Amino acid sequence: MLSKEDMTQAIVAAKTEQNVSWQAMGDHLGHSEVWVASACLGQNTMSKQEAELTAGLLGLGPDVVAALQVFPTKGAGQHYVPTDPLLYRFFEICYVYGPTIKAIINEKLCDGIMSAIDFSMDIEKVEDPKGDRVKITMNGKFLPYKKW
Amino acid sequence: MLSKEDMTQAIVAAKTEQNVSWQAMGDHLGHSEVWVASACLGQNTMSKQEAELTAGLLGLGPDVVAALQVFPTKGAGQHYVPTDPLLYRFFEICYVYGPTIKAIINEKLCDGIMSAIDFSMDIEKVEDPKGDRVKITMNGKFLPYKKW
Amino acid sequence: MLSKEDMTQAIVAAKTEQNVSWQAMGDHLGHSEVWVASACLGQNTMSKQEAELTAGLLGLGPDVVAALQVFPTKGAGQHYVPTDPLLYRFFEICYVYGPTIKAIINEKLCDGIMSAIDFSMDIEKVEDPKGDRVKITMNGKFLPYKKW
Amino acid sequence: MLSKEDMTQAIVAAKTEQNVSWQAMGDHLGHSEVWVASACLGQNTMSKQEAELTAGLLGLGPDVVAALQVFPTKGAGQHYVPTDPLLYRFFEICYVYGPTIKAIINEKLCDGIMSAIDFSMDIEKVEDPKGDRVKITMNGKFLPYKKW
Amino acid sequence: MLSKEDMTQAIVAAKTEQNVSWQAMGDHLGHSEVWVASACLGQNTMSKQEAELTAGLLGLGPDVVAALQVFPTKGAGQHYVPTDPLLYRFFEICYVYGPTIKAIINEKLCDGIMSAIDFSMDIEKVEDPKGDRVKITMNGKFLPYKKW
Amino acid sequence: MLSKEDMTQAIVAAKTEQNVSWQAMGDHLGHSEVWVASACLGQNTMSKQEAELTAGLLGLGPDVVAALQVFPTKGAGQHYVPTDPLLYRFFEICYVYGPTIKAIINEKLCDGIMSAIDFSMDIEKVEDPKGDRVKITMNGKFLPYKKW
Amino acid sequence: MLSKEDMTQAIVAAKTEQNVSWQAMGDHLGHSEVWVASACLGQNTMSKQEAELTAGLLGLGPDVVAALQVFPTKGAGQHYVPTDPLLYRFFEICYVYGPTIKAIINEKLCDGIMSAIDFSMDIEKVEDPKGDRVKITMNGKFLPYKKW
Amino acid sequence: MLSKEDMTQAIVAAKTEQNVSWQAMGDHLGHSEVWVASACLGQNTMSKQEAELTAGLLGLGPDVVAALQVFPTKGAGQHYVPTDPLLYRFFEICYVYGPTIKAIINEKLCDGIMSAIDFSMDIEKVEDPKGDRVKITMNGKFLPYKKW
Amino acid sequence: MLSKEDMTQAIVAAKTEQNVSWQAMGDHLGHSEVWVASACLGQNTMSKQEAELTAGLLGLGPDVVAALQVFPTKGAGQHYVPTDPLLYRFFEICYVYGPTIKAIINEKLCDGIMSAIDFSMDIEKVEDPKGDRVKITMNGKFLPYKKW
Amino acid sequence: MLSKEDMTQAIVAAKTEQNVSWQAMGDHLGHSEVWVASACLGQNTMSKQEAELTAGLLGLGPDVVAALQVFPTKGAGQHYVPTDPLLYRFFEICYVYGPTIKAIINEKLCDGIMSAIDFSMDIEKVEDPKGDRVKITMNGKFLPYKKW
Repeated sequence: MLSKEDMTQAIVAAKTEQNVSWQAMGDHLGHSEVWVASACLGQNTMSKQEAELTAGLLGLGPDVVAALQVFPTKGAGQHYVPTDPLLYRFFEICYVYGPTIKAIINEKLCDGIMSAIDFSMDIEKVEDPKGDRVKITMNGKFLPYKKW
Repeated sequence: MLSKEDMTQAIVAAKTEQNVSWQAMGDHLGHSEVWVASACLGQNTMSKQEAELTAGLLGLGPDVVAALQVFPTKGAGQHYVPTDPLLYRFFEICYVYGPTIKAIINEKLCDGIMSAIDFSMDIEKVEDPKGDRVKITMNGKFLPYKKW
Repeated sequence: MLSKEDMTQAIVAAKTEQNVSWQAMGDHLGHSEVWVASACLGQNTMSKQEAELTAGLLGLGPDVVAALQVFPTKGAGQHYVPTDPLLYRFFEICYVYGPTIKAIINEKLCDGIMSAIDFSMDIEKVEDPKGDRVKITMNGKFLPYKKW
Repeated sequence: MLSKEDMTQAIVAAKTEQNVSWQAMGDHLGHSEVWVASACLGQNTMSKQEAELTAGLLGLGPDVVAALQVFPTKGAGQHYVPTDPLLYRFFEICYVYGPTIKAIINEKLCDGIMSAIDFSMDIEKVEDPKGDRVKITMNGKFLPYKKW
Repeated sequence: MLSKEDMTQAIVAAKTEQNVSWQAMGDHLGHSEVWVASACLGQNTMSKQEAELTAGLLGLGPDVVAALQVFPTKGAGQHYVPTDPLLYRFFEICYVYGPTIKAIINEKLCDGIMSAIDFSMDIEKVEDPKGDRVKITMNGKFLPYKKW
Repeated sequence: MLSKEDMTQAIVAAKTEQNVSWQAMGDHLGHSEVWVASACLGQNTMSKQEAELTAGLLGLGPDVVAALQVFPTKGAGQHYVPTDPLLYRFFEICYVYGPTIKAIINEKLCDGIMSAIDFSMDIEKVEDPKGDRVKITMNGKFLPYKKW
Repeated sequence: MLSKEDMTQAIVAAKTEQNVSWQAMGDHLGHSEVWVASACLGQNTMSKQEAELTAGLLGLGPDVVAALQVFPTKGAGQHYVPTDPLLYRFFEICYVYGPTIKAIINEKLCDGIMSAIDFSMDIEKVEDPKGDRVKITMNGKFLPYKKW
Repeated sequence: MLSKEDMTQAIVAAKTEQNVSWQAMGDHLGHSEVWVASACLGQNTMSKQEAELTAGLLGLGPDVVAALQVFPTKGAGQHYVPTDPLLYRFFEICYVYGPTIKAIINEKLCDGIMSAIDFSMDIEKVEDPKGDRVKITMNGKFLPYKKW
Repeated sequence: MLSKEDMTQAIVAAKTEQNVSWQAMGDHLGHSEVWVASACLGQNTMSKQEAELTAGLLGLGPDVVAALQVFPTKGAGQHYVPTDPLLYRFFEICYVYGPTIKAIINEKLCDGIMSAIDFSMDIEKVEDPKGDRVKITMNGKFLPYKKW
Repeated sequence: MLSKEDMTQAIVAAKTEQNVSWQAMGDHLGHSEVWVASACLGQNTMSKQEAELTAGLLGLGPDVVAALQVFPTKGAGQHYVPTDPLLYRFFEICYVYGPTIKAIINEKLCDGIMSAIDFSMDIEKVEDPKGDRVKITMNGKFLPYKKW
C-alpha cells in the first residue's frame, strides 16, 4: 500500500513535470485549489471519483488512486512549533492576536469556537503597487458550547 | 507605572460595566475593532491621541492613557501551544493545512512569507440558517526572500 | 471583578460547608451535575438566571453571579500532561487506545471528529460486588471534514 | 520476528482488500470490535487461539499469529500531545473537563482512579437527523487509594 | 480553607519543633510511616478520625484536621523530571532498568501493570559495615489487561 | 560490530524459540534474573565468561559474545516520560510519593541518596487469592553528601 | 527528484574536492557569499540561471540545477535550541541582549521588527594582533506594526 | 537589597519621565548606548563610578547604585524560544541562516566560535526612502578550539 | 520557619555588607569555600555547630542557624538547561565532550560513574599573562555497576 | 564522503580489535588522550598530519584521514538532558553546585565565564583503598564581559 508520503511525492513530481497548477487541479475536480492541495499533501481524503480524476489528470496509477482515499493521521511528524518562517507567522499571529480573536468572537457570538472541521479557506494574491499582498479567508462554523 | 495587565483589567472592567462594544470603541477611534481590542489587551500601542480617546470614552485616567502608549513585549506568559479550544483551533489549522498554505503561497507568489506585522485582520459573524459562521480575513504584505 | 479562581474557591467552600452535592446543584438548575460542576470550576459559562440560582442555593453574592457569566480561557495554567493519576489515566487511554478510536470512528462514520464542544458527558458510579466501577459516557456530534 | 508495525500493516492491508469490518472481526472472535482493533493495531495481546482465528479470517500466516501474542510497549513513538484533530479532542476534553471529572468521581466514590487496565470501551454511531453523533462509553474499575 | 501547602508547612513545623518522627506518627495512627507521611505531605487523604489523631498528637487545630481530609490533586507543581538527586535516582532506575522490569513482569505474570493505587511501600535503613543501605519494597496488585 | 539493539533482538528471538526463562538464564550464570535480563536488554555489561555462558545456552555466536561486553550508553532513545502504562506507574509513584520517600530517607539516614549503581533489584510474583501482586525490592547503598 | 539534503551533500563534496571557496562561488554568481551558501545549504532558492551557474562551476548535473530552484521548508529537523557552540552563541546573545535590542529599536524607530526576510547579512574576518575577530552585519527592513 | 527587576523598573520610569535617551545615557558614561542599556536592564554590571554617573543623571538613589554593581544571573525567567516577534526574528535568522553562518566562519577562520563575551554590538537606524532599515553589527573575538 | 531562599538572601546581604569572602567563611569553618558556599546557597546542609559558626561570623540569628540544617530539595525552580552563560558552558562541555568523558572513564576504570555525592570540587583562579584562567577540579568516587 | 558517525565506528572497531588505548593514541600524536578521543568521536578536528598519524596507527584508509579534518556540528542528535547515568552526573553537579560555581568565580575573578573553547580537560583514575576515584580537571580561560 502506497504511504501518504510516497503518494504526495508522486503527485508533486508529476505536477511539476507537467506544469499543472493547483488552480487547474481544483478546477478539474470542481473543488477549491486549497482543498485539493490539502488532499494531495496527505491531510484530507478524496472520494473514489475525485481520486481517479486527480490521478487521470496527472497520468498516475491505481496506487495513487487508492492512497488518496485513505483517512490520514493529520499533522504527523511535525514540530509543535514550526521553524519555517512562512508557517511560523500563523503561530505568531495567534501569540499576538490570540486574546483579541477570543474577545471579539466571544462578544459577537458567545462562548464557543470557530470549527476547524466544518471549515474552508481561500488564499489569494492581491496585487498592490506598494507590494503584493496575501489574503487568507477562513470560514468556519461557529460551535457554541453545549449545556446539558 | 501601570502594567499592561492592570491596564487591560481596568479597560475590560469599565467596558463591561458601561456595556461598550469593541465595535463602538473602534468607531470612536476610527480604527478596526480588532486593532483597538489588540491594543487594549496589551499587544499593540496607541498614539497619545488614540489613548486619550479610548480613556475618555470609558472614563479612565491618565495612567491608562500612559500605559496604552508603552511598547509591549508580545505574547508574554503564554504556553507555546494554547489549551483554550478557541485558540487551539488556529494551531490545528496550521498542523492540518500548513503544508497546503505553503504550497499555494509559494506557487502563486514565490519563496517568501505573509507578513504578520504589515498585517490586518477582520473577524465577522456570518448569519446562516444552518448555524452561524465565523469569517476571519487576514491580509498581510507578501515579503519575498531578498537576494544579496 | 472576581477572578474565576476566586469564584471557584468561594463556591467550593460554601458547597463543602453546607454539604451540597453536585447532583443537588444540577437538579436545582435543571442541568447535568457534570455541566454545573464544569461551570463552577470555571470552564463553562452560565446565563444570568443560572448564575443567580447557583449563588442563591449556596448563599453567595452578586460577585459570584457576575463571575459565573464570564467567558473563560479554558485549561489555563495546566501542565500539558497532568501528573495527577486520576487525570493521567485519560491521557493513557488515548496513548493506548488512540489509534483504535481513530480506526473505529473512521470506519463507522468517515474522516472527521467527535466534537468536544457540541458534547455532553455523564459520570456514573456502577456498583459491582467485585469492586465498584466508574462509567463515563461521552456523546459528541460527529463533524465530517468539509470539502470545498 | 515480525514487528508489531509490520503485523499491523499486514492485517490492515488484508482487511481492506477483503473488506472485513472491525465488527465482523470482533464477532468472529467473540470480543468487542474495539478490543480486537486495539490488538491488531499492536496495543494489546491475543491468546494463541484468538491470534489463529484472526489470521485465519484474513488468510494471514504464522508470523502474524506469533506477533499478535507478543506483549507490546504501548504508546511508543507518539508525541506527548497528538496533532491529529480526532485524537486531540480527547486531550481537550481533559483540559476543559479534567477538574470536573476529578470533582465528580471524588464526590461519588472517594480518592482513587478509574482504571485504564481493568477497562472496556464502546464506540457507537448514534444516528440523529440534526447530524450523527459519536457515543463513547468507558467503563473502568474504581480503584481507591490503599492505606497501609 | 487551609491549602494543602499550608497544611504541610504547619505539620512539618510542629513535628520538627516537638521532635516527633514519622515512625511515631505512624504508630499513633496504626498505619505505616510511609503512608502517614504521604498524607501529611498532601498526597493522600485521611479519614476524620485519622486526621484528628494526627492533629492531636502535634497540637494542631481544626483547620489542619479539615485539610487532611481533602482529596488532593497529586504531583501538582512538579517538574516532569526532578532535579533533586535523591528523587532523580528513581527516574534513572526506570531509564536503565525499565525494559528489564517490563520483560520480567510480562514473563512472570502476563501483559498488565503493577498498580500504583492498590499499592504499598516500605522504606528501611539496612545497617551494613561497608556502608548502610536503603531498602525500598514496593507491593502493588497486578492488574492484567482486560479483554472485552 | 553488532549493535546493542541487534544483540537484544537476537537473544530475545533465541530465548523465545527455545522457551528459556530469564530465571533459567540467571541460574545458568549464577546471577539474578533481573541483572541478566538488564545485560541482555543492553543496559549492563557482562564479563567474557558470562557472555560465553549466555551465548552458549542460547546457541548464539561470537558476535553476541562480543556485544554483551560492550559498555552501553544507557537509556538511549527513550522519551523523558514513558507512555507505556507499566513503565509510567514508576514515574507516577515518584510524582505521588516522591516527597514522602525524600522525607523518610532524610529522617532515617540523613541528606544523601540511595545509589542506583551500587544497587540491586528483585521482582517477584506474590500469589494472592484476591489477585496476584507484584513485589519489587530495591536495595541501594546509602551515599551521604560529602563535606570537604 | 533530488532532495535538498542530497543536493547539499553533492555541492559540498564537489566544492571540497575542487577547493572552491564560498567567496569564489559568490563572485561567480554576482551575489554575496552568504546568500549563495544559504541557497547551497538548502535554505534559499536560486533562479534557473543562478542554479546553472552554480552547477556549472562545480561540474554538477541537471538534478542539482533543479533542486536549487525548489522552495525549501526552512529550519526543518533542527532542535529548538542548538547544541553546537558556534550556533548557540547567537541564542545566548538573544538571552543576554534581547531586552536591550528591543529597547533600542523601540526607542530609535518605534514598535515593530527588523525583517528577517527583506534582510541581508555579511560575515567578515577582522584581523587583530590580539586575536582575530568575527564581524557580522545584519541589515533588515524595519517593519512598523500596522494600524487598521 | 534592590533586586535587578526593581532596579530596572526604577531606571526606566525615571528615564521615561525625564525623557532621557539611551544615547544620552551612553554619552554621559562614555560607553555605547547598547552596553549601557544592557546594564540598566540587568544583564551586565557597572563599576561603582559608572553606577554613580547613571544614578546621578536620573536622580536615583544609592540602592540603584548598589544594584547596578551586582553580578546578574543572565537570561533568567525567559522562555527558551521567545514569542515576542522582534526577539523571535533573531532565532529565525539562526534557524534559516545558522548552517550558513557556521560554514562561512569555519571556512574563513577555522573550527571555533565568535565569542558572545568579548563581544560588542551596535544597533543603528538607517534611513531609506523605500523604508527605514535596522543595521545590527556584532563584533566578537574569534576563539579557535584549543588542542592539548 | 525561614525558607532556604530567605536564608540565602540574609547570608548574602550580611556577607556583602561586611565584605567577608567565601574563602574566609570556609577557613572559619575548616571546610572548603566551595562546600560552604553550596550550603549557604541552600544546596547542602550544615551540622548545628557549623551553622552556629556561620551565623556567628556574620552576626545572624537562630532562624538562619536552623535553616542551614534543613535538608534541601536540590536544584528546585531551575530551567532544565540554564540560560546564564557561565552556567551554560558546563552543559556545553557535556554536549561536546560527553562521549569522550564516557569513553575515557569506561576504558580506564570500567562501566560505572563518577559519584556526584561522594564528591568534592575546587575552583581556582590561575594567573596567566595571556589572560587569567579558571581551574576546576572535580573529584568523585568511582562507582562500578554492581552485578547481583 | 565518510560521515563523522561512520568515521567513529571505524576508529573504535580498529582500536578495539588491535587493543590500542586512548593513552597510546594520545602519546602517538603528542596530544592529550582526552583531546584525541574527542576528535575520534567526531567532536573536534585534526590537522592533516594528525589525521594521518591516527589512521596510520590503526591501519585505516584515506577516507578516515579526510573525515577527521572536517569541522563538526557538535552535540548533534543528543537529548537536551542525557539519560545515561555517567553523563547525567555532570548535569546534576550543575543543578546542585551551579549557583556555587557562579558565586565563587564571580567573587574570585569578576563577571565573566570560563571558556569551553580555550579549554582543556584531564581525566584521571586515582587509586584509593576505600575505592578508586575519578579526578577531572577543567582548565578554561577566564573571559570577562567586555564593556564598549
